[in-house]
Amino acid sequence: MCELLGMSANVPTDVVFSLTGLMQRGGRTGPHRDGWGVAFYEGRGLRLFQDPVASCDSEVAKMLQRYQIKSEVVIGHIRHANVGTVSLANTHPFTRELWGQYWCFAHNGQLADFYPAEGFYRAVGETDSEAAFCDLLNRIRDQFPSPAPAESLLPLLIEACGEYRTRGVFNCLLSNGEWLFSFCTTKLAQITRRAPFGPAQLRDAELKVDFRAETTPDDVVTVLATEPLTDNEAWDLHAPGQWSLWRLGHCVASGQVPAC
Amino acid sequence: MCELLGMSANVPTDVVFSLTGLMQRGGRTGPHRDGWGVAFYEGRGLRLFQDPVASCDSEVAKMLQRYQIKSEVVIGHIRHANVGTVSLANTHPFTRELWGQYWCFAHNGQLADFYPAEGFYRAVGETDSEAAFCDLLNRIRDQFPSPAPAESLLPLLIEACGEYRTRGVFNCLLSNGEWLFSFCTTKLAQITRRAPFGPAQLRDAELKVDFRAETTPDDVVTVLATEPLTDNEAWDLHAPGQWSLWRLGHCVASGQVPAC
Repeated sequence: MCELLGMSANVPTDVVFSLTGLMQRGGRTGPHRDGWGVAFYEGRGLRLFQDPVASCDSEVAKMLQRYQIKSEVVIGHIRHANVGTVSLANTHPFTRELWGQYWCFAHNGQLADFYPAEGFYRAVGETDSEAAFCDLLNRIRDQFPSPAPAESLLPLLIEACGEYRTRGVFNCLLSNGEWLFSFCTTKLAQITRRAPFGPAQLRDAELKVDFRAETTPDDVVTVLATEPLTDNEAWDLHAPGQWSLWRLGHCVASGQVPAC
Repeated sequence: MCELLGMSANVPTDVVFSLTGLMQRGGRTGPHRDGWGVAFYEGRGLRLFQDPVASCDSEVAKMLQRYQIKSEVVIGHIRHANVGTVSLANTHPFTRELWGQYWCFAHNGQLADFYPAEGFYRAVGETDSEAAFCDLLNRIRDQFPSPAPAESLLPLLIEACGEYRTRGVFNCLLSNGEWLFSFCTTKLAQITRRAPFGPAQLRDAELKVDFRAETTPDDVVTVLATEPLTDNEAWDLHAPGQWSLWRLGHCVASGQVPAC
């Protein structure tokens, strides 16, 4: 299995605190040694950092814990390989361009007997995860050749995720930079931080932050993670089949696909 | 104007020496302060590092000068903005997936009145460079829906580059990880290093390397750059209209488009 990290915020926010917690699980406090990646949206651009080595030992991860990239949407992933070798091409998150936007996707889980129809987008690596991402984009492109708001895509996204779920475990994060979509089949936790902000203590490292010193009263920041990253805050645990759409830190739509 | 860096090698090779020279030109020995990027192929994977700041001051660039990523194909770029704001979305190199391969492109120059036909691939940013890359991929995809060897693509690449050239300056590098294509309309220099290897001294920094200590007798490494990066070696200067196809460090095809 792998672990996911997502962030949606209404102001460009650095994710160093959460990232530091996640990176420990990549070989130190967790077994996810088979690569890691983080994608940061900045305006219409997307920065993707990946390393097919344990994040706790990664030079790139160390640099990111010093360099405070500010972003409104972040998707991160640490990998414990199930399907596909340990290689850069199999390292999440994956990205593709659709409608002149960079789309980004990461997956925690495993799909069995998953052979989606060929389409425009093709997987570069060997993972079921990248195959699912390409299939999802092919469906979106077929049904929406031109840009459409997230709300219009939701029925398609929910139906597709419901199908993937019948093949195994499918916790995922998807974004085009404007919004962040999450789907949970087994494990996904979330916290929305807003005023009054308080202190937070990482579970996986001796690191505390006082968000009062880092924020303004209007900031709203949602963090999603496979397991809660702090031990002094109340995280919401998503239910199997639960999907959510996040925009600027807020949950703007959510629902639940019935158990299959 | 901008500056390009390319590498093609028959063995995974680190490009730290050349990169260190190029990074100086991003604000220290040259005026290219408006962002930089480097893409490294590793197997089928592609790592793209970008920073929309001067490379001489960039945290990411400093990390790359310590972290020896080994690759058979590299494309790098430092930007002096002409068209489009200074932003991540306008920072080269650009990448897209075609045929289940990551393609990568960087451009030095400027195209006037360039409005290519809409196609599958769309630009995310505002640069003429990304528009040309998308147009090139749209042409390839239209004519070659399935993977084709570089040699079959050459007539299309040469024709398209010849067209772009009528719009302005079009020095470029293009790769799908298997080969590297270069096109020169004004400035491109190249050196192919092979046994017997010798010492090299950067022009832009107090840095010397003795390639004898870093190589084996069978290594062949070609480096391309807008301006020669070393001052004690004989670089070949490409002529206007000259195109070349590089594979595993060797030039496997080349020619020249007549002046327009």
